[in-house]
Amino acid sequence: MKKDLKITIIGGGSSYTPEIIEGFIKRHDTLPVKEIWLVDIEEGKEKLEIVGNLAKRMVKKAQIDCTVNLTLDRKDALKGSDFVVTQFRVGLMDARIRDEKIPLRYNCIGQETTGAGGFAKALRTIPVILDICKDMEKICPDAWLINFTNPSGIITETVLKHTNIKVIGLCNVPVLMHMVAAEAVGAKSKDEVFVHFAGLNHLVWGRKIYYQGKDVTSQVVEKIVNGMKFTTRNIAEMGWIKEQIKDLNMLPCPYHRYYYLTYKMLQEEIESAKTIGTRGEIVKKVEKELFEIYKDPNLAEKPKQLEQRGGQYYSDAACELINSIYNDKRIIMTVNTRNNGAIADLPDDVAIETSCVITKQGAIPLNTGHVEVQIRGLLQVIKAYEELTIEAAIKGDYNKALQALTMHPLVTSAEVAKKILDDIIKENIDYLPQFKVYN
Amino acid sequence: MKKDLKITIIGGGSSYTPEIIEGFIKRHDTLPVKEIWLVDIEEGKEKLEIVGNLAKRMVKKAQIDCTVNLTLDRKDALKGSDFVVTQFRVGLMDARIRDEKIPLRYNCIGQETTGAGGFAKALRTIPVILDICKDMEKICPDAWLINFTNPSGIITETVLKHTNIKVIGLCNVPVLMHMVAAEAVGAKSKDEVFVHFAGLNHLVWGRKIYYQGKDVTSQVVEKIVNGMKFTTRNIAEMGWIKEQIKDLNMLPCPYHRYYYLTYKMLQEEIESAKTIGTRGEIVKKVEKELFEIYKDPNLAEKPKQLEQRGGQYYSDAACELINSIYNDKRIIMTVNTRNNGAIADLPDDVAIETSCVITKQGAIPLNTGHVEVQIRGLLQVIKAYEELTIEAAIKGDYNKALQALTMHPLVTSAEVAKKILDDIIKENIDYLPQFKVYN
Amino acid sequence: MKKDLKITIIGGGSSYTPEIIEGFIKRHDTLPVKEIWLVDIEEGKEKLEIVGNLAKRMVKKAQIDCTVNLTLDRKDALKGSDFVVTQFRVGLMDARIRDEKIPLRYNCIGQETTGAGGFAKALRTIPVILDICKDMEKICPDAWLINFTNPSGIITETVLKHTNIKVIGLCNVPVLMHMVAAEAVGAKSKDEVFVHFAGLNHLVWGRKIYYQGKDVTSQVVEKIVNGMKFTTRNIAEMGWIKEQIKDLNMLPCPYHRYYYLTYKMLQEEIESAKTIGTRGEIVKKVEKELFEIYKDPNLAEKPKQLEQRGGQYYSDAACELINSIYNDKRIIMTVNTRNNGAIADLPDDVAIETSCVITKQGAIPLNTGHVEVQIRGLLQVIKAYEELTIEAAIKGDYNKALQALTMHPLVTSAEVAKKILDDIIKENIDYLPQFKVYN
Amino acid sequence: MKKDLKITIIGGGSSYTPEIIEGFIKRHDTLPVKEIWLVDIEEGKEKLEIVGNLAKRMVKKAQIDCTVNLTLDRKDALKGSDFVVTQFRVGLMDARIRDEKIPLRYNCIGQETTGAGGFAKALRTIPVILDICKDMEKICPDAWLINFTNPSGIITETVLKHTNIKVIGLCNVPVLMHMVAAEAVGAKSKDEVFVHFAGLNHLVWGRKIYYQGKDVTSQVVEKIVNGMKFTTRNIAEMGWIKEQIKDLNMLPCPYHRYYYLTYKMLQEEIESAKTIGTRGEIVKKVEKELFEIYKDPNLAEKPKQLEQRGGQYYSDAACELINSIYNDKRIIMTVNTRNNGAIADLPDDVAIETSCVITKQGAIPLNTGHVEVQIRGLLQVIKAYEELTIEAAIKGDYNKALQALTMHPLVTSAEVAKKILDDIIKENIDYLPQFKVYN
Repeated sequence: MKKDLKITIIGGGSSYTPEIIEGFIKRHDTLPVKEIWLVDIEEGKEKLEIVGNLAKRMVKKAQIDCTVNLTLDRKDALKGSDFVVTQFRVGLMDARIRDEKIPLRYNCIGQETTGAGGFAKALRTIPVILDICKDMEKICPDAWLINFTNPSGIITETVLKHTNIKVIGLCNVPVLMHMVAAEAVGAKSKDEVFVHFAGLNHLVWGRKIYYQGKDVTSQVVEKIVNGMKFTTRNIAEMGWIKEQIKDLNMLPCPYHRYYYLTYKMLQEEIESAKTIGTRGEIVKKVEKELFEIYKDPNLAEKPKQLEQRGGQYYSDAACELINSIYNDKRIIMTVNTRNNGAIADLPDDVAIETSCVITKQGAIPLNTGHVEVQIRGLLQVIKAYEELTIEAAIKGDYNKALQALTMHPLVTSAEVAKKILDDIIKENIDYLPQFKVYN
Repeated sequence: MKKDLKITIIGGGSSYTPEIIEGFIKRHDTLPVKEIWLVDIEEGKEKLEIVGNLAKRMVKKAQIDCTVNLTLDRKDALKGSDFVVTQFRVGLMDARIRDEKIPLRYNCIGQETTGAGGFAKALRTIPVILDICKDMEKICPDAWLINFTNPSGIITETVLKHTNIKVIGLCNVPVLMHMVAAEAVGAKSKDEVFVHFAGLNHLVWGRKIYYQGKDVTSQVVEKIVNGMKFTTRNIAEMGWIKEQIKDLNMLPCPYHRYYYLTYKMLQEEIESAKTIGTRGEIVKKVEKELFEIYKDPNLAEKPKQLEQRGGQYYSDAACELINSIYNDKRIIMTVNTRNNGAIADLPDDVAIETSCVITKQGAIPLNTGHVEVQIRGLLQVIKAYEELTIEAAIKGDYNKALQALTMHPLVTSAEVAKKILDDIIKENIDYLPQFKVYN
Repeated sequence: MKKDLKITIIGGGSSYTPEIIEGFIKRHDTLPVKEIWLVDIEEGKEKLEIVGNLAKRMVKKAQIDCTVNLTLDRKDALKGSDFVVTQFRVGLMDARIRDEKIPLRYNCIGQETTGAGGFAKALRTIPVILDICKDMEKICPDAWLINFTNPSGIITETVLKHTNIKVIGLCNVPVLMHMVAAEAVGAKSKDEVFVHFAGLNHLVWGRKIYYQGKDVTSQVVEKIVNGMKFTTRNIAEMGWIKEQIKDLNMLPCPYHRYYYLTYKMLQEEIESAKTIGTRGEIVKKVEKELFEIYKDPNLAEKPKQLEQRGGQYYSDAACELINSIYNDKRIIMTVNTRNNGAIADLPDDVAIETSCVITKQGAIPLNTGHVEVQIRGLLQVIKAYEELTIEAAIKGDYNKALQALTMHPLVTSAEVAKKILDDIIKENIDYLPQFKVYN
Repeated sequence: MKKDLKITIIGGGSSYTPEIIEGFIKRHDTLPVKEIWLVDIEEGKEKLEIVGNLAKRMVKKAQIDCTVNLTLDRKDALKGSDFVVTQFRVGLMDARIRDEKIPLRYNCIGQETTGAGGFAKALRTIPVILDICKDMEKICPDAWLINFTNPSGIITETVLKHTNIKVIGLCNVPVLMHMVAAEAVGAKSKDEVFVHFAGLNHLVWGRKIYYQGKDVTSQVVEKIVNGMKFTTRNIAEMGWIKEQIKDLNMLPCPYHRYYYLTYKMLQEEIESAKTIGTRGEIVKKVEKELFEIYKDPNLAEKPKQLEQRGGQYYSDAACELINSIYNDKRIIMTVNTRNNGAIADLPDDVAIETSCVITKQGAIPLNTGHVEVQIRGLLQVIKAYEELTIEAAIKGDYNKALQALTMHPLVTSAEVAKKILDDIIKENIDYLPQFKVYN
């Protein structure tokens, strides 16, 4: 078994990087990471250096046998990589802010990964991930791609369908949900509670929750509808409609609020946009402050303020995933992988987010079979939207892009979809070479 | 083979009745209908007599060997029936008007069969159709139930899942679409054009259109997006979004406008409600005038004015269907029947609307297999909504009813669904015995 | 609509040809066949001339506007063809006799199309049909291929999976079964009885039989188990095991005897081989006599003796099929076509034999859904054998060929399969270029 | 978490019992078994006492806090049970010997669990397991049923379909296969090798084998076809046909020899029956000797001679399974459980044998999806046979029993099946109350 692992992090200049560095330091006993390469693009050079230097100080302080390397040369970084972690953001935070604002103009949910915003992000990101995979196929064809880049499910499916790279997509939302379930039943740790997850990225349900061998799903649901706090940092805490969630009898994910509470969420977004700013605008400020903190030459650990950023557990989950692959730990994690019939109501070749056994040869989904009718429709319509989005992004097909957006329940109507699509293409044209002809 | 057929029409006082009478008269040579029983309820007695007397005059004038009988006693009428046609409307036209208006209060599409309006209609109708089937199981268990009552797909599925009665659900929309396709390619009659239909009632697509052995689907689509007139009398003619329909590359049905052009359709509905009235209000007037005409003792044929009513071809399709069953004609018609795998992306036990061979033993669907991704999501989410609606209506389950409405793409959000549902229950309580406890 | 049809018959020197000529003559009013081209290979030249001259005399006598043309140049014949009928036999009758005898050496059923014999025939035929289709793709890409060549299901599936040619596979067995069902219930003609067929070529069941709208399947089964005559000319009449067929509650096909009555059928084959000869040896004699009769310059019609040959209704079914395609008759016929989910228990991309509507654009299967457990296993194992056989034949893969034979229930064991396979390759090597390396 | 576990072993007088007792002793630190109840029937009383007294001595010697209790009163033993282990044999060893001999009379494989022998065993066992479950539903409805009784897949499916008891079926064959795979690649322990198993009990394939993250399936197959020893004690070591196994490219199970090498296996069985006796006759002698050894009052451990018996690892696997359930260990074991779509080519409601995660709430299958065509046919035909067998056994339906046997590839023909079935009923009539009417 190889003893000197090389990890390459694309989008290495991200403010999240300190968490993943911390994760590797913590696991150094069992996970012998010898080289970490942080890769970024020219526009991200300054951030890369700030966070890269912090990473170097962290590793040095930890006194582990590991180097941190900074580069703008992706191909160089990929050489000999065992794991490639992607956490980049095409168009930086400004693109996110646009993704949030364009749909709001037309009274549609404006969100980074869900609805029309996530759609725009997918169009921008798909050409880049394909480029990265083309490089990997040549340079490090056996490396694992661990993808965080959102929309994580769509990006994972793109890699599964259009490249030969081994990929697992990751999200922190199921980790958070698992913790909430454990808290709801008073378990000491989330490991005591078994949650069988099934769905798509940012549309995942905790279908069955077991504690001490008993099905405690209703008990957890009861807590949730009675106001137990349950959200991520980027989504407004918004009370669920009790009767609907009780009929659901599953743990929804925080993103379900966009579907189940569309009207209120939209009002909240409109109000925020006018006052405190969209989530992207807030995060932009938080990040600015974070990078100021990161600059401190005496700082040699992940600063507490990073928790404000949202997305916690993300990087730690990635380290745990890499650890489980490397050591063939066969633990159960919730990741994005090829469906292959695990959810009988979706096509075989799509990406799903579900409980998997993580082995040295990859993620094997636990079987779900048919899902309940109360989640089936939404699951299926979003998956159809995702498939159309990938096809449109790959081909640069305007009509198909319009179809995808039209099918999305948070957009629905073709005449609104067309306006949003036209704005997206116009305002992102530098990142959408495949759609240039339509601008 | 039986020579003296008895037909029972439930909701016999409907303004449509003259068309079905005309249909039987036209086919009398091959379809030996000996007795027609028109059944209605106390509230419909006056209309039953008016239209019933017209029917008698029509039959008399045609000099066929057939009697027309009027009754308020359903059980009596069912005795010895070979075919039972259901075209009743629970709560009469006023209920329809409520169905149209309640959703509009919350900026949702208000339509007789689609969205929240159709949902309300389903809740009212399901208990009644089950009652009718219970009678049939006792009195005429071998009779065919030919259902027109809307929402026709949901009602057919209810009968398929919860009774032992042989049922076929019927709609005029595919007939109209077939005619439009024939017109688009310049065929002499619709029989020259083969349209393979697949979908659900009021959500059916002409997936493949053939003329002279060639696939002419794109050609028909081109005509449609370039403004060829194509709607039913109850749906506003509204221009499709060209690019989306071209990607669809199928013939949508007029009701697809509610999904594809939601915003415009909603504006149009709001405007109409304020000015000329909702469709139900208009129809109410049309019907009043029609019944005045029907009263004329010299009238002995279907008056031309009935065409203003909308729903043309409906009754004729029913006669043709009955004819094809009786004579084992094995023609291809588009009806609502058990899926049984014909559309691979939907459960086996649900009702679909698809091209079928009509035999003496019933409707056999032509196989569709998997449908294209551009229609799959909407098809699946609406079917899930329909399944939940039936379950909620049968059990009188408020939470499930809320779930069904929340899942509907024309309602989407649970908080809006709850308001609509509460209004529906409150304002229809006399017709919703199963929900009494929630009022 | 084209008025001058050109039909090309590959294997035109077959003794069946007079029947197909008769079929075209009978239908000349509605099916305007202007040219018939009979194609054969050098070895078949003499037979081609004999039967071709008879065909010419038949057409002349019928006084229809149609020419009969004889050629050894397939490419020339294909030019401008509207329908190509394949009824050739690679290796002629001697190959069939070998197919019957090799398995018998190892106590396995030796039959032209079923078991190891049909397997050998498939290996020889697949390269030739692919060659024909390659020619068609260049010369007449829009022509229909109507395939009779056995094993008809395997050949049809090969064309479906590996070429772009429109194909329908045909067999006379369902026609015979349909007639038997009609006779069993005392119907005047088979058109009065509806048999819903499902299965594979030579493994098809009459799953549901209706007469006058009633399910009469059990009634037909009762007749069959009580000794009603029911076989084809090439299969020994052998009494079914009553209890098993009653549990089946479907109409088996005569070839099911090889599976259900393996032991007795094998004894019968062994006995026949020793005494009267295998079926191939008998047919060889019958054909010789037939060709003597065909030579008679005064003969200008299909001679009665052809009925002795077996395979009756075959050619007539082909004419009816061509007629239904040309005239878009939309009648129901049982043909071999792509499954596409019609039988839910088999893969989508395989050929099945089932009741289809025959339209101008091709065959559309009536939906079957899941089949009953009593037929499911045999159906599935034979289809897996067929898929493996095609793969082996295309790749010339010895191991896969062995796997295919091993999986066949009439061979079962790999050690026997290996012996049979080695004999097949050795004794057919001239017709198995793809397996040359293994000889 | 409950601390005092009660285990009830039905068929407690079995010669295997010392191994399971040893298993509980070994795991006592983590698996607090407080009471073991050995249940048997009147005919097994003597053996129960012999083996029960040995068990008592073993527990005493181990100085663990656990009692061993012997009883003929099943209901009494079930009270308060946490786990019920079934390892009984209806009709004792003499029935097994009959199962082996009857098929041999008709030149069919005679084997305890496979083919006609396993069929007879299923008919006898199904009424008894249903009886046990009926008791459990009343007395200990939350207890787990851990079934060893053969045919283990059929028995598990019977419990899944016809009772409310939580059941997991167990077999030692995958354990043995896993060990062989580990040995083939030179792994230190089987835990280092990941074998993804899929199939049915005694028809399971090691579909994919991974070692150090690499797919080593071909490498293991290469070893097997080159003569690596690989069988269970009850199945003759018989060389595979190399080419077929290479095409298979999976690890077959020893029982596959009955299907792949039918002819040789049959010859071997016939020869053995004439000389050393059938496997049942040999085991009968081995058991007699074992019980003599068990009687030794100084013996207080599992004697080495038990390994001669065959079936090793069985009881240990059961203890490990119980341990993993009790402690929610989430290890991967290969067990028999509800398919639920895990193998897409089989119905949802059947039992399969596959790699599962074992949790406190039960076994969750790892997803397989569609299986390869080279195993699909045999898998499907045997499952259909199993479904028919269960239905026949439950209903006492002679025709269906005949259908089941006819479908079995090791019997195939209905006329042979009928003879075997008649002999089975006649010679087992005391154990087949449901078939009494047919004797």
